[in-house]
Amino acid sequence: MIGVILSGGSGTRFWPKSRERYPKQFLNITGSHSMIQDTVERILPLIPIEKVFAVTNERHAFETCKQLAEYGFDPANLLAEPLAKNTAPALGFAAGVLAAAHAEEVMAVFPADHVVRDPAAFRRVLQTAATVAAKGSLVTLAIRPTRPETGYGYIKKGAARDDGSFAVQQFVEKPDPLTAQKFLDDGGYFWNCGVFLWKISTLLEEMKHLMPELHKNIAGIAAHTETSSGKYVYRRLDAQGKKIYADLHPISVDYGILEKSGNVAVVPTEMPWSDVGSWSALQDISPTDRDGNLLTQNVIALDCSGSIIQGEKRLIAAVGARDLVVVDTADALLICDKARAQDVKKIVEKIKASQRPEAEVHATTHEPWGCYTVLEKSPDHIVGKLKVLPGETFDGKAHSSRDKTWVVAAGRGEVQKDGKIISLDKNQSIFIPQEAEHRLANPGDKPLTVLEIRTGEELAEDQKDVGFRP
Amino acid sequence: MIGVILSGGSGTRFWPKSRERYPKQFLNITGSHSMIQDTVERILPLIPIEKVFAVTNERHAFETCKQLAEYGFDPANLLAEPLAKNTAPALGFAAGVLAAAHAEEVMAVFPADHVVRDPAAFRRVLQTAATVAAKGSLVTLAIRPTRPETGYGYIKKGAARDDGSFAVQQFVEKPDPLTAQKFLDDGGYFWNCGVFLWKISTLLEEMKHLMPELHKNIAGIAAHTETSSGKYVYRRLDAQGKKIYADLHPISVDYGILEKSGNVAVVPTEMPWSDVGSWSALQDISPTDRDGNLLTQNVIALDCSGSIIQGEKRLIAAVGARDLVVVDTADALLICDKARAQDVKKIVEKIKASQRPEAEVHATTHEPWGCYTVLEKSPDHIVGKLKVLPGETFDGKAHSSRDKTWVVAAGRGEVQKDGKIISLDKNQSIFIPQEAEHRLANPGDKPLTVLEIRTGEELAEDQKDVGFRP
Repeated sequence: MIGVILSGGSGTRFWPKSRERYPKQFLNITGSHSMIQDTVERILPLIPIEKVFAVTNERHAFETCKQLAEYGFDPANLLAEPLAKNTAPALGFAAGVLAAAHAEEVMAVFPADHVVRDPAAFRRVLQTAATVAAKGSLVTLAIRPTRPETGYGYIKKGAARDDGSFAVQQFVEKPDPLTAQKFLDDGGYFWNCGVFLWKISTLLEEMKHLMPELHKNIAGIAAHTETSSGKYVYRRLDAQGKKIYADLHPISVDYGILEKSGNVAVVPTEMPWSDVGSWSALQDISPTDRDGNLLTQNVIALDCSGSIIQGEKRLIAAVGARDLVVVDTADALLICDKARAQDVKKIVEKIKASQRPEAEVHATTHEPWGCYTVLEKSPDHIVGKLKVLPGETFDGKAHSSRDKTWVVAAGRGEVQKDGKIISLDKNQSIFIPQEAEHRLANPGDKPLTVLEIRTGEELAEDQKDVGFRP
Repeated sequence: MIGVILSGGSGTRFWPKSRERYPKQFLNITGSHSMIQDTVERILPLIPIEKVFAVTNERHAFETCKQLAEYGFDPANLLAEPLAKNTAPALGFAAGVLAAAHAEEVMAVFPADHVVRDPAAFRRVLQTAATVAAKGSLVTLAIRPTRPETGYGYIKKGAARDDGSFAVQQFVEKPDPLTAQKFLDDGGYFWNCGVFLWKISTLLEEMKHLMPELHKNIAGIAAHTETSSGKYVYRRLDAQGKKIYADLHPISVDYGILEKSGNVAVVPTEMPWSDVGSWSALQDISPTDRDGNLLTQNVIALDCSGSIIQGEKRLIAAVGARDLVVVDTADALLICDKARAQDVKKIVEKIKASQRPEAEVHATTHEPWGCYTVLEKSPDHIVGKLKVLPGETFDGKAHSSRDKTWVVAAGRGEVQKDGKIISLDKNQSIFIPQEAEHRLANPGDKPLTVLEIRTGEELAEDQKDVGFRP
């Protein structure tokens, strides 16, 4: 079996924890790992890491490789989309690339940002589903509803088949509350959770029939891929491939193929699942206090109820908050009526429209070599923090009007300044004048933390830059 | 006429903008100056600065002098209380000190943290009141109510006198909503606003009669004052004076004298006034948007109404907030149901009880020489910013286990390090090893901004210190 992780999140509904450049799948929301790491961990007992592929926007490619490196993920298994086109093109891309070597193998598709509370149960269902898929069906996993959710699509199951699956009687778009309650009471309706299994040949055949244009376009896509440069050498489209991709019609595989095909089998399951589609979903997957609140450390609450208050370092004091979502980060704060959690994406659009960077980047930007955090920015200075991973090097470029002072707070650094190499231990500092070429390497096996003060007149590039890159 | 500014705020109801060490009177809440500066500006056309006195807790003494320096306030006119004892002892202290030289002069008493929208009208009323006070009455200013406020004490005016004042028929404690509405409709009830005028001899005479113990204790208090050391030489109590003060019964002058005296005249006025007693009061004194919101810059709102959202640098995005108070500062955030604004002091008590420093200090601490802001604090480093005022010097003490690097971001500094003097221009930096004695002076006429990185193991004193002093 081949696993294909779809990691196309755009970072709006979990703003401000998620941002365009660092969406939900990279965050640790419920466990000890990020959501994409959890996704991989969950399937590794069934699918060897060499057979795990990921389709992701190119802007998220290196971070995906970085987060999956500890599982032995091969960056060559990452297929970078030049732009988001919904799931049918993304799966077409994957199938197009994989068809040559794996046409008769089962491809299991996993969204990168879902929560599955019982991974063992999940794997048992996957095994059943894989058997069904191997016989030539398009298989979709379906979750028994636990509440009258109006935010999901539903599948009504049809006749039972002899392999543990069911025919599909009907796909239903997001229902109104009354209908959702009927579905819950009926017992025959399931949530469509976006986990699919099929042989690659089955998918391509159905695509040829139901989405002929997409099928034609992705048929030769493998020939239009190239390898990236940089620390992680992943697979992306060349100029011609990008042109083809840009013209694809953005559509979901559910709408484009599953809802129209007569060859769909559904494998229902009762396992606890959530797509964590908004801040309010957190209450379904995490234990609340006796007043129904979900509070992080550093929250001091008085007479609050039903509220989700997620802080970081800052103290949050809440008085009389009812059914409120409060999410505090270093550079942006969200206050939202819990019933309006779905509208967080609307406010993110407003933020973008007002030309502010907080929709796109965090105070911390993640780079292949580590990360950079802005602590303070003013017209005459920037104070920041570099974390350089063991064995990595940050390449500074000569700034025309910013002097830098670096102080090592943890670890040991090696600074290359105008060709000379200077070793810096903890508590040691170095001044880098504006005209100097410079690099900062971490030769050790522990993270290197360097505090940085940049002074001098503001550069045009600082003003333009949506982030605050070093 | 003598002006006595009562500046005894404890910084709880306007938390997190106000803190114990930097309460409301020091903040610029509504105008271009701090509230205590506004209070002085308002009376200067009537009372020369040499005759302006202030009674304040000793912990607020230097900041009071610093903020009033631009008006020519003489620090010797500041009377520092060793601890807060409510208004009767504070005014007894002032009267005790001033009696020798000014017994027959009118003393006008002004709370330091009220908003008066029409200072000219205020001064006209003061002049009327001063005439009445000069004839030997205890005079209290009274404001015509504009809403059925339950948070204030009321005065029912009695018979008109021939000097523009009225007798007092009754003092009424904070009423319930129904009673407050009756008072508003009646027209004869006024808010007791805490501005009093009387000859010092009148006050002492009434005190002798109604609060004989306080009168006895403060009779000799002037002999137990001493001058402070440091940049601002103010007046405080000596050891014996502190002992006397510690034993005083804490009580308001309203309760201790005015409500019991037969010699009170009230001068009513219709001028717009607010004691800004809670966050919700802001809406009474500042114009709201068409949805009734009071939003600062950096707030992006969607479908919010009746809400007060006060940010600083961070972006605040609000969706569907109704009648909410949100106040964001560098190190602490308040979320409060607007109807519970009076309970902010309760949450401040909870913060204190949990041993957190945010009830007492800000991320920025104010010092006679300037201020210090913590930008980041972690076990292995502190990043901060020093602002040294022109002509001032910060005295560093040798830390046993913290190295410092200073970088000048603005202005010019003079660093004295182990006896040597090093001049630092903008963008220049210096390393100060943990064992070095050091001082940082600003010899120029512009503010000096120095960014500071401290590295090394955490000191016990850092952990103990409620603030983050340099």
